Amino acid sequence: MHPFTDNPAEAISALGEQKLIAAIRRWLGNATPPSPFGIGDDCAVLPRSSRRTLVTVDPVIHGKHFDATVPPRAVGEKLLKRNLSDIAAMGGRPRAAVVALALDAKISTRWLAAFYRGLASASRRYRVPIVGGDISHQPGGFAATLTLIGEASAKRVLTRTGAKNGDWIYVTGTLGGSILGHHYRFTPRLDEGRWLAALPEVRSMMDLSDGLAKDLAALTPADAVPALEAGAIPISPAARRLAARTSGKTALHHALADGEDYELLFTLATRADRAAFEATWKRKFPSTRLSCLGRFARATLPEHLNLHVVHGYEHLRQTS
Amino acid sequence: MHPFTDNPAEAISALGEQKLIAAIRRWLGNATPPSPFGIGDDCAVLPRSSRRTLVTVDPVIHGKHFDATVPPRAVGEKLLKRNLSDIAAMGGRPRAAVVALALDAKISTRWLAAFYRGLASASRRYRVPIVGGDISHQPGGFAATLTLIGEASAKRVLTRTGAKNGDWIYVTGTLGGSILGHHYRFTPRLDEGRWLAALPEVRSMMDLSDGLAKDLAALTPADAVPALEAGAIPISPAARRLAARTSGKTALHHALADGEDYELLFTLATRADRAAFEATWKRKFPSTRLSCLGRFARATLPEHLNLHVVHGYEHLRQTS
Repeated sequence: MHPFTDNPAEAISALGEQKLIAAIRRWLGNATPPSPFGIGDDCAVLPRSSRRTLVTVDPVIHGKHFDATVPPRAVGEKLLKRNLSDIAAMGGRPRAAVVALALDAKISTRWLAAFYRGLASASRRYRVPIVGGDISHQPGGFAATLTLIGEASAKRVLTRTGAKNGDWIYVTGTLGGSILGHHYRFTPRLDEGRWLAALPEVRSMMDLSDGLAKDLAALTPADAVPALEAGAIPISPAARRLAARTSGKTALHHALADGEDYELLFTLATRADRAAFEATWKRKFPSTRLSCLGRFARATLPEHLNLHVVHGYEHLRQTS
Repeated sequence: MHPFTDNPAEAISALGEQKLIAAIRRWLGNATPPSPFGIGDDCAVLPRSSRRTLVTVDPVIHGKHFDATVPPRAVGEKLLKRNLSDIAAMGGRPRAAVVALALDAKISTRWLAAFYRGLASASRRYRVPIVGGDISHQPGGFAATLTLIGEASAKRVLTRTGAKNGDWIYVTGTLGGSILGHHYRFTPRLDEGRWLAALPEVRSMMDLSDGLAKDLAALTPADAVPALEAGAIPISPAARRLAARTSGKTALHHALADGEDYELLFTLATRADRAAFEATWKRKFPSTRLSCLGRFARATLPEHLNLHVVHGYEHLRQTS
């Protein structure tokens, strides 16, 4: 479905702000609590929590994070899920979200209704109420920016800093080719993230958004380099399909460089009992693949992957 | 200064994402703490708080909330201040903010630097660290969306609901004509809001963003109407200047209908000692004007203001 319409009767401009807000509350249904805990006051009010607060913000923008080929429900789900993936990456638990819309008056009401129903569906599935937001007019586009408030689930918040030379490098799921659908069909790894944050031998973690080759740098200690085994990279079926279609890149290249995997990348201390760790993982998360890609070392050997030949997604560069 | 440039060397596209993030950290300086308490991890981490959490979100969008005539520093300050005004309206205290940018690659680096320096300056003045954010490419525009996390300062969070028939209606400052500069030069009424929230006789509160005539409806009890004295409306000098320039609207009309006053509108219980309340206000806030506009009543009399003849700012309606 196309987000924009040239028929004024089918566009949100036919509603005006008050009716649009009423419609959004209807579309969200029980995914938004009554005010002041939800939409309708100057701020949303969240109950007390004895834990540290986590905050993350990510948008979905038309032409950038989705186009007319992605169903509007899936766009709404993606908006919440990509922020949930950030909470998962710190081992946290989500609490509530606010959504700021910047949209053209020509946005189709039917499209927007489906977008909000998708958001509401994800909100219920992950138990994250949509507690407020803002609507502003911005000619020519559609951007929805969601800020997710969470809380630490363990004593520790698992950050990107902490890996040491010698640590093992792990990743969940399979990588690459998200453009074929995974970029909105993924499952944020909340349970896995919380479990990992409770283990002291897990020393650092992040979620993959710009591709392994680029993102791994954020976990790499200053005095080490990642020594990865090419055969250990979990290449997704989509990455293989993409490589078969176009002759430009190998499936491995897609797995290393494509963005929007939304998988967890983490490091395990050298001293950890890897066999026991992996056996427990299989019992706890039988349907989430886990791969050990290699470890941090002082230097790479010729048989290790050379990450410099591929690049993750670099934003804002003009390609003209 | 114009936000956009046609010279690629002066645009953010010359930087790319990594260098742009580094530049933003530099521009923010000590307004952003080190990660994971600031920019650089998957989420920002806030220290524990024993109070209820408040959340609000508002953007500044080019062409909508500012244009090239507004200095970029003032745009950055406005982005934080308009959210602070929402925290003030609940009687809260701000804790931390995250900022999501959606921008064209042609945004001028010099403009963006000044925008962030303005944001940093307001961040230091109001002691609200900028703890994280997101940068996304959106062709053709500039939108910065700030989510502000706050906490309740009193036992009570002062909401829009609670006024009763007979209650007095008060407003801070003067109203109207914000387009002449007040829309970015205003001071959020944080101290006043916190003080009011601690008084049980203050029954409801909000901040004025769409104009008194429209906003007052949110505080009006279902069984009453606002009975306002025309002579009591605090008309701003800017509203008078605007009325003198254009013959279309009176200064009173501007005071009632113009948006972006960012003043507090609140109601006082009938039983309250108004004289004592107003005397204490003058002592505590000698430079913040306070006006009693009238009260809620079963019906208006001919000498009362008829709010139906004016309208506050209505968003998203097409005026074609």
